[in-house]
Amino acid sequence: MRNIDEHTITAAFVQRLDACTDPRLKQVLTALVTHLHDFAREVRLTEAEWMQGIEFLTATGQKCDARRQEFILLSDTLGLSMLTVAMNQATPPGATEATVFGPFHTDDAPEHGQGDDIAAGAPGETLFVDVTVSSEDGTPLAGAEVDIWQADAAGLYDVQYEGLQERRARALMRTDAQGRLRFRSIVPTAYPVPTDGPVGQVLRASGRHPWRPAHVHFLIRAEGHRALITHLFREGDPYLDSDVVFGVRSSLVVAMPRHEPGTAPDGSVQGQPFHTLTHRFVLARLG
Amino acid sequence: MRNIDEHTITAAFVQRLDACTDPRLKQVLTALVTHLHDFAREVRLTEAEWMQGIEFLTATGQKCDARRQEFILLSDTLGLSMLTVAMNQATPPGATEATVFGPFHTDDAPEHGQGDDIAAGAPGETLFVDVTVSSEDGTPLAGAEVDIWQADAAGLYDVQYEGLQERRARALMRTDAQGRLRFRSIVPTAYPVPTDGPVGQVLRASGRHPWRPAHVHFLIRAEGHRALITHLFREGDPYLDSDVVFGVRSSLVVAMPRHEPGTAPDGSVQGQPFHTLTHRFVLARLG
Repeated sequence: MRNIDEHTITAAFVQRLDACTDPRLKQVLTALVTHLHDFAREVRLTEAEWMQGIEFLTATGQKCDARRQEFILLSDTLGLSMLTVAMNQATPPGATEATVFGPFHTDDAPEHGQGDDIAAGAPGETLFVDVTVSSEDGTPLAGAEVDIWQADAAGLYDVQYEGLQERRARALMRTDAQGRLRFRSIVPTAYPVPTDGPVGQVLRASGRHPWRPAHVHFLIRAEGHRALITHLFREGDPYLDSDVVFGVRSSLVVAMPRHEPGTAPDGSVQGQPFHTLTHRFVLARLG
Repeated sequence: MRNIDEHTITAAFVQRLDACTDPRLKQVLTALVTHLHDFAREVRLTEAEWMQGIEFLTATGQKCDARRQEFILLSDTLGLSMLTVAMNQATPPGATEATVFGPFHTDDAPEHGQGDDIAAGAPGETLFVDVTVSSEDGTPLAGAEVDIWQADAAGLYDVQYEGLQERRARALMRTDAQGRLRFRSIVPTAYPVPTDGPVGQVLRASGRHPWRPAHVHFLIRAEGHRALITHLFREGDPYLDSDVVFGVRSSLVVAMPRHEPGTAPDGSVQGQPFHTLTHRFVLARLG
């Protein structure tokens, strides 16, 4: 086929998939390219804009490394991540809702035991966390794997500190026989997503603020249950209604009250104010 | 806004653009994200597929360097590049048609004079090129800048040779007072686009061949005229009707006849068979 024009090119592309033996790939590529072409035709994309797009995508890929995932950040800020979560994680009544994974998870969180201080030096007011993990029918889930990560009082994750090698405010833990997990961390604060890359440029150019309301990330896995990727958001945060990644669920907003110096939930005596957080996670059963 | 679901997220995104002061950016982002969300909803994108997409885009960006532009290759193979060219380069009757830019242009082509051998050692049968550049009304365009690049007999551009520093089969030249340009190069051959990267994986998985029909690239600039980005394709090539990047225009398919050893157009005596190519480029006037 020669002399393909703006009206015939989409059908020409689809025809090239005749030999595709993977029906799902064929379906996804057909829909993707049809929407991509429709987009370009709808806005009458110019050649300069096309080149800007190429340069933007290239810069986004080159911003990614072991500590930074700029394409996840892009997907998050365009609402694609939350849309994908919403489509796939329709939660059974009573089970904890999911939200976005975000770009700051690492695969090397240190293992911690019950009662540990997982902040490991990250700055912030102490937060005493006491959570339980149970199944839909209320059965406590013993030995559930809980992956936790969060930003510090400066609004930064450990991986955002240039030169910092150790992991802070990040842990891999297991629930006890009663499905319970207690640990010390720091109270999360609201923070802007990283704006020093291509995604930050788009946010600025489009007049959007880059803030996420304060939250702690949880990834919880238990045998026979669907993995839960979620956050707990801090009640009262000014960005709860304008989260830059569209991730807030009312059911995930929890109190993290501040207490005057004194005896903490773990029996220790605190010379500084501290916060507490209690929550019950409910995992949906598989199959 | 909280508890955004798959049905409300597109409107929620658009609302975030309320403070965008650039109406074109607002229009482009609104259309882009609407189509992106529609695509995800239409195919019911899974979380695993979403992650595959993130990894694919990241790998594509990281494959790019000064010698390789994998995102242009992706755009080319999805038909987006040719669509953009077709929308923006509606050619006035009589003017030379445009086609895709491709991923192999470099900004450091060596300057060459009339009659030079621009192959500079690239393997292939000699091609004697004799082209003219004129305006729509037939006026020859003297001093037009002509940027030329092409693959060799092995189907490779100079930048695809690991460790090769010099530029081969690539040149920046100017037309003479009669708008004419003569040089020696090599006859182009059909070649597969690079398949050792993410784009190659998609082509294989979708049952598509990676071939482009043989061609020589031209980028021609002359004062008062629209820059012309085009190719000349070699008549008789088996891939003219299935170019992997959808770029073939009938008007750009030209003869490059093979001649037995003997006297060449430049008066030299050739001991090996050689090819000739003559063509008239017509540039559209600006404004």
